[in-house]
Amino acid sequence: MSRLANRYELIVPDLRGFGDSSKTTGPWGAAAHAADLLALLDELAIEHIGVVGHDIGGAVMQELARKAPERFTGLFFFDFVYPGIGSRMAEPGRLNEIWYQSFHQMPMAAALVGATRESCRLYIGHFLQHWAHRKNAFEEVLDLFIDNFLKPGNLQGGFDYYRAAHDGRIAMMRGKAPTLPPVKVPTCIRWAEHDPLFPYDWTDRLGETFANLDCAPFPGVGHFPHREDPDRAAREIESFFDRISI
Amino acid sequence: MSRLANRYELIVPDLRGFGDSSKTTGPWGAAAHAADLLALLDELAIEHIGVVGHDIGGAVMQELARKAPERFTGLFFFDFVYPGIGSRMAEPGRLNEIWYQSFHQMPMAAALVGATRESCRLYIGHFLQHWAHRKNAFEEVLDLFIDNFLKPGNLQGGFDYYRAAHDGRIAMMRGKAPTLPPVKVPTCIRWAEHDPLFPYDWTDRLGETFANLDCAPFPGVGHFPHREDPDRAAREIESFFDRISI
Repeated sequence: MSRLANRYELIVPDLRGFGDSSKTTGPWGAAAHAADLLALLDELAIEHIGVVGHDIGGAVMQELARKAPERFTGLFFFDFVYPGIGSRMAEPGRLNEIWYQSFHQMPMAAALVGATRESCRLYIGHFLQHWAHRKNAFEEVLDLFIDNFLKPGNLQGGFDYYRAAHDGRIAMMRGKAPTLPPVKVPTCIRWAEHDPLFPYDWTDRLGETFANLDCAPFPGVGHFPHREDPDRAAREIESFFDRISI
Repeated sequence: MSRLANRYELIVPDLRGFGDSSKTTGPWGAAAHAADLLALLDELAIEHIGVVGHDIGGAVMQELARKAPERFTGLFFFDFVYPGIGSRMAEPGRLNEIWYQSFHQMPMAAALVGATRESCRLYIGHFLQHWAHRKNAFEEVLDLFIDNFLKPGNLQGGFDYYRAAHDGRIAMMRGKAPTLPPVKVPTCIRWAEHDPLFPYDWTDRLGETFANLDCAPFPGVGHFPHREDPDRAAREIESFFDRISI
């Protein structure tokens, strides 16, 4: 973000249930988050804006682009879930990658992960290392992540997202996600070359969801391009918004 | 066990890695456990014996019955995994039931679950309640379970089983479990009517694995017939071994 702050006005909201946003009774999913963000844009009287995001942000972005395409100049995203991934998500060989999507829905999950600071470090640290290609990418900031997750309600708030997303994800895995008209907002996707969670091969059907798509691999990184290679991530974002604003 | 101790000589070994057995470096799967049990029978100079078990015990029993069928008078089992379950195990709607089979393979799992006594209670208590139909079946003994799991190495030892079982389970889910000749040892299976983990419907292909099969539902219980209705469980076991010893 610091790399882009000179050129752009950046708005970085915590989704409801996450970070420092309210812990109202959920679960909240992508549709609710998108409604919140549109309300935020209205409140700030912002007519047009670009969206940048990753993972869960990609689910929210798809809702935004369908609810109010006229508000968005462009969509820039790293690895996320979209309908074309389909049954590949739950292929037996992938189960050891996606179990957490179920675990987070269990009533005991937040208490187990948040039992002690060390428990939270073990759990969050596992994913930040396992999903990264540059294995030490989060070493310096792991304690900040733990601080955030241990704030009251934050683990449950984040885990609740998976309860809200469950039915849609199961439908996708069964190849029964509803067929929606493609998003026409200019879209740039840089998908990590080495994401163990969402392999690059899974980009093959992005064109069915995004009609105006510029997709390319992001080399040398895992699930977190913006953290693993922030210089390149910033350049890619800047370059996309330059191209579409000509 | 107390219900059967008057009529039978009972041998109740802890599988390697579990309970009070040695915590030698694993992971140990069903094949290794079966070899251990045959060695135990040799050591005790027992020529013929009946086998009774449940869940993981069912995997070990299948190995035993193929390695040394001549040693076993009969096999009596409650709900367990066998090849005919196939891809049903990993159908998308089942993912929230089987995630733990993946989680147990994660390097941080045992430390997370064993972080505190309360962590262990949350985790083990979740399954003992969720999988039971008689929800309070384990209330009185939950602390004994926790005592056992918190003994050094026991959580890791138990979780290691899932690492050993992984490849076989994935092959089964893909419908690629090796086709083996059916077990000919007389087999009695009483499968819980309300097992949320292994639904009764999944008994439909037991005949492919067990040639001499007496299978019936065990009414009014979940995943733990022997704990949820121990009187009936003991009667069923006794009645089976009476029938085959005529």
